Amino acid sequence: MADGLANSIQEALSAFAAQFPGRFSANSGVRGHHANTLTLVPPQLPDAVVWPETTADVQALVRLASLYRLPLIPFGAGTSLEGHVNAPRGGISVDFSRMNKVLDIRPDDMDCTVEAGVTLSQLNTELRATGLFFPVDPGAEHATLGGMAATRASGTTTVRYGSMRDNVINVTAVLASGDVVRTARRARKSASGYDLTGLLVGSEGTLGLMTELTLRLHGVPETIVSAVAAFDTTEGACRAATLAIQSGLCLARIELLDEVQLRCLNTRANLGLDEVATLFLEFHGSAANCQADVRTFETIAGGEGGRGVTSAGDPASRKLLWRARHDAFWAVKSSWPGKQVVVTDVAVPLSKLAAAVTETAADIRETQLIAPIVGHVGDGNFHAIVVVDPANAAEVARVEAFLERLVARALAYDGTATGEHGIGQGKRRFLAAEHGAAADMMRVIKRSLDPLEIRNPDKIF
Amino acid sequence: MADGLANSIQEALSAFAAQFPGRFSANSGVRGHHANTLTLVPPQLPDAVVWPETTADVQALVRLASLYRLPLIPFGAGTSLEGHVNAPRGGISVDFSRMNKVLDIRPDDMDCTVEAGVTLSQLNTELRATGLFFPVDPGAEHATLGGMAATRASGTTTVRYGSMRDNVINVTAVLASGDVVRTARRARKSASGYDLTGLLVGSEGTLGLMTELTLRLHGVPETIVSAVAAFDTTEGACRAATLAIQSGLCLARIELLDEVQLRCLNTRANLGLDEVATLFLEFHGSAANCQADVRTFETIAGGEGGRGVTSAGDPASRKLLWRARHDAFWAVKSSWPGKQVVVTDVAVPLSKLAAAVTETAADIRETQLIAPIVGHVGDGNFHAIVVVDPANAAEVARVEAFLERLVARALAYDGTATGEHGIGQGKRRFLAAEHGAAADMMRVIKRSLDPLEIRNPDKIF
Repeated sequence: MADGLANSIQEALSAFAAQFPGRFSANSGVRGHHANTLTLVPPQLPDAVVWPETTADVQALVRLASLYRLPLIPFGAGTSLEGHVNAPRGGISVDFSRMNKVLDIRPDDMDCTVEAGVTLSQLNTELRATGLFFPVDPGAEHATLGGMAATRASGTTTVRYGSMRDNVINVTAVLASGDVVRTARRARKSASGYDLTGLLVGSEGTLGLMTELTLRLHGVPETIVSAVAAFDTTEGACRAATLAIQSGLCLARIELLDEVQLRCLNTRANLGLDEVATLFLEFHGSAANCQADVRTFETIAGGEGGRGVTSAGDPASRKLLWRARHDAFWAVKSSWPGKQVVVTDVAVPLSKLAAAVTETAADIRETQLIAPIVGHVGDGNFHAIVVVDPANAAEVARVEAFLERLVARALAYDGTATGEHGIGQGKRRFLAAEHGAAADMMRVIKRSLDPLEIRNPDKIF
Repeated sequence: MADGLANSIQEALSAFAAQFPGRFSANSGVRGHHANTLTLVPPQLPDAVVWPETTADVQALVRLASLYRLPLIPFGAGTSLEGHVNAPRGGISVDFSRMNKVLDIRPDDMDCTVEAGVTLSQLNTELRATGLFFPVDPGAEHATLGGMAATRASGTTTVRYGSMRDNVINVTAVLASGDVVRTARRARKSASGYDLTGLLVGSEGTLGLMTELTLRLHGVPETIVSAVAAFDTTEGACRAATLAIQSGLCLARIELLDEVQLRCLNTRANLGLDEVATLFLEFHGSAANCQADVRTFETIAGGEGGRGVTSAGDPASRKLLWRARHDAFWAVKSSWPGKQVVVTDVAVPLSKLAAAVTETAADIRETQLIAPIVGHVGDGNFHAIVVVDPANAAEVARVEAFLERLVARALAYDGTATGEHGIGQGKRRFLAAEHGAAADMMRVIKRSLDPLEIRNPDKIF
């Protein structure tokens, strides 16, 4: 690095430190924590971390960053799986953990306004007395709502309640210009101008820094019934999931776990389930509807090699089941201690799900990888949780080649390179293949709103 | 007009005529038909009309338009209420009526792909054998799906099935650059890059010309029950609607019609209903759920000055009811022959609906206007159908002032200037008041994608 540049970065950091006394750190441990990527993407540390407490703080950050041409990388809880929080060009990691106030809950409007650093579990705890809840559930309860919005998160409940795309009403964000925009008012719908909410949700910090969100809330259902269904084959489980969706059952969750994943979960959570391809389901509705739909599902499963459906209405069984599902990643990690675990995701049209999963499973066998498959199969979205020794270059290469084939297979089925993890750094190489000229259109928009190219640079593009 | 400019336009039109033999018209009647605005916005005729038949035709149009700097104004069925099809700077009206093929219906994926000129009724007719339907229902059955997408249309069923924002999976569009973009693949969700589908839906032809759409389809519900509920007051009807939504009833439609509108409908359709504030409802679900929810709604209505709920499960009663509702505009128009009818819409948060409607009704009385109120009240969205004599300047001025107050009231309640009609020309003056700095952000995006400012100019901005 030229001395001039080093001096200029030191000068910039001094300016940030002066602007944010007690809320600035250039400590290497802190910086390392903010570049933890959980995957094969190597950590790339920011030059410093700043903790804003208000939208005005974020405006001040943006002004300084523009002045010194320093990148700004938003940081929520660091649960991204595609390197979103990395700082390949250095710069400031903007940690939103101190912007953690639930600003307003409006039960009559079934919405709420939160600061971007509020976590999912915090919000749902605060909502407990209202009979309402925020349904998007990416699995990490301590994920921040700002991070979830920035990556267009979804998860186990999307099949019923939609993703962040469907549940964010307004984003308050600071643009590169320093302007604070509010993308929408609180009406449940609007035809007034461009859908900037939709544009910012999923933009991964490349267009603006989100400081507040208004979110749509949903009524806690009258009855919740969970169920477990074991199948002879993964393909049969996928076909049953697809049929269940096409039948319009009152499903709120329908999750595939293959036999390898079941083995990991049994070991970790002592579930005592058959180690075969399995669906975990949850029905939301009236008691009568849930019962009727469980019965319909039993019929569907029976036709696809189902070995029986066990259902339960009590909260304790449900919690056990979904805690186990959410711990899939950790169950795999603890089953192969010392190994790295790479979680990847793709999504395909429903009619292609069984084929895509079956072919992926065959690929895993042929490539001799350990890679349990789990999936939000009601959305055609599935994950491979790939176990890899990062010190074994040949194995890493085999994993990389498998990931390429997985995405190529999804795209060939008119699917997407990522159903819910985002592009980040990890999937940039697939952007052109998936989007063609639309990727250029994205670039035009990016340049128009970030002319200095300092908003989470080298992400998405 | 300077002779040079006139010559250049003649030269341009000749080029278009040569490129589109038999599919080009500069006939003044044809041009007039394409600038029919249905409202107080005066017609502004395009220089010519062209009928493309393929996406490649639209690309050719775009290239010629760029060469000659001529505006392109997309035209579907001309049902816009805010002057979207007008040509204030001349140019070419691009009539999509010959791009009317349903390209693919995929029942297993619950989606379909259509050309932009396919009409809503055409699509639902073609879907009849599949058990699926496309639910967005703006009232005009001959509206084109391209027009509905371009204006982010919604309507009576949005409370259950969402608007065009929620039901368009992919837009194929021709950008000003001539590039054909496909905004998304067919997976039910994706976290790959910016949500360009959302950006184009509702962009009113100002960013690109849509040529094809992939749409989400829904299963025809097992049971449909319609109901009519009369109320002592409009406020009571609004409160009942809000409570019904908050209770999570299986409502697919919940429409307010005030006493003036009921009078018009009785006259036109001979409905024989009490001429009081009334809700028209439709429940979609299982037979048991529909019955249970009708009973719950009866209880809700009873608490808000309801005079009784009449429900019916037979298709004939339902059709009669919704035909009448969809004819609200024509019922008003035929009740005051020779007058102009201005339909406007705003939307507010649910908790503000009763107040906003009640204050609007009082304003109508005080201003001595004839303006029945109807509304998609489950979304907090309502219309005033204002009767006005365009030759009476004082009356026009009173109407204009009323419209200003209506929007100001919606914005004061954190609502929007338009829930579903769009900005077009008619509501441009409210853009800054509603969006502030976000309107500037929209302008930046517009300029980046339409540097020549020839994509439906003077709309939205």
